[in-house]
Formats: sequence, structure tokens, C-alpha cells
Amino acid sequence: MTTLLALYRRPDGDDAALATFLRRYHAEHLPLVAATPGLRSTRVQRVVEALGGPTDVVLVTAMDFDDRAALDAGLASDAMRQAGRNLREIAPGLSTLLIVEDDAGPAGS
Amino acid sequence: MTTLLALYRRPDGDDAALATFLRRYHAEHLPLVAATPGLRSTRVQRVVEALGGPTDVVLVTAMDFDDRAALDAGLASDAMRQAGRNLREIAPGLSTLLIVEDDAGPAGS
Repeated sequence: MTTLLALYRRPDGDDAALATFLRRYHAEHLPLVAATPGLRSTRVQRVVEALGGPTDVVLVTAMDFDDRAALDAGLASDAMRQAGRNLREIAPGLSTLLIVEDDAGPAGS
Repeated sequence: MTTLLALYRRPDGDDAALATFLRRYHAEHLPLVAATPGLRSTRVQRVVEALGGPTDVVLVTAMDFDDRAALDAGLASDAMRQAGRNLREIAPGLSTLLIVEDDAGPAGS
């Protein structure tokens, strides 16, 4: 499994700015993401608390693909390109996108 | 579902320092986590690439619980307290722990 893990930081402004981002994320962004070929599942989670210190991350989305080749094909798709353009509109500079892969641990451990 | 999402940053030093952290994380830390009451599943993923900019996050672990009450009970358990002490030893100051909850979107969206 290869996962595109998106971390979204709180937008500048008051709670209304955050509410607007969340509304547009669900109404505009996720439908574009959902059309990505090869996407196996999407999990959207709100950050409700950070332990041991503050965080500016408010939302975390995990998008699963079978493997890195499937993710790369998905990223190159029209759907994901549109999703990327949408993201630059609704949350400019507020996301970190990590490609993560299941980790079985160091060999021999 | 309520998830404890742990983000681990790269330790200071060379690749050997990272390898040591990963080895001890799997050999020492995860067995302690696995003993946590109420823990439904654990997913450990390595960061293999960041899109759009660098990241210092090298490892992401999602620990799923049925709900916030189950997570709170798990956090208060001996197993998780031991895991916390272990983490302060093998990766002092290098983790961010987020409590995240499934997000169905704004009401009415």
C-alpha cells in the first residue's frame, strides 16, 4: 500500500476562515479527489487535540493506492491535477503532501 | 473511529542515527504500543517523498481506537505510559502526537 498523506494547516484568520476551508474542502476538493483513477480509499480526519504541544494542523487526509506506480498514475490524472488546482485556491500554501509506504521494519529486526 | 496519529521527525545526525531510531522503534516501541488496551489497529508508514517541498517527517504511525473514550483509556494504560517513556528515550522531542477523528464534513454541506 502506498498512501498520499495530506496535512492541512489552519488558514490565517478567524474560525470563519477555517469553516470556509472545511466547507470548500468537502464540497469542491474531495469530489475531485474521488475521481482519481487507482484511488482505493480516502480517509478524512479532523485534528481535535495535540498531545505535548500545540499544532497548526487541522485536517489530515489519507488517500490509499495499491502501490507507488498506481499513486504516480493517479497524481498524473486529470482528476488529481484539478484537485491540485482547487487546493491552491482553497488553501494556498497550507498543505504538506507526503508519500508514505507501509513499513515492516528494518530487515532482520 | 478516533486515531492517535504520530509524526516522527528525522533525528539529528547521519543516516545511522535514523536507522538506529527505526530499529529501536520497531524492536522496543511498537511492542509496548501493541499491548495498549482498546487499540484496534496500528499502521506504520515510512515517508518516501514529500511533494512540493522538503519535510523533516520520516515516519507516520496511525493507532486506531473505537472512540475518544477508548483512546483516553488507552493513553492512561501502563502500556502506553511505558511506550511514552520509551519514545522520550529513542526519539526525544522528535514526535508530534495528534488526536484525529473521522470527519464527515460540515453539517448540511
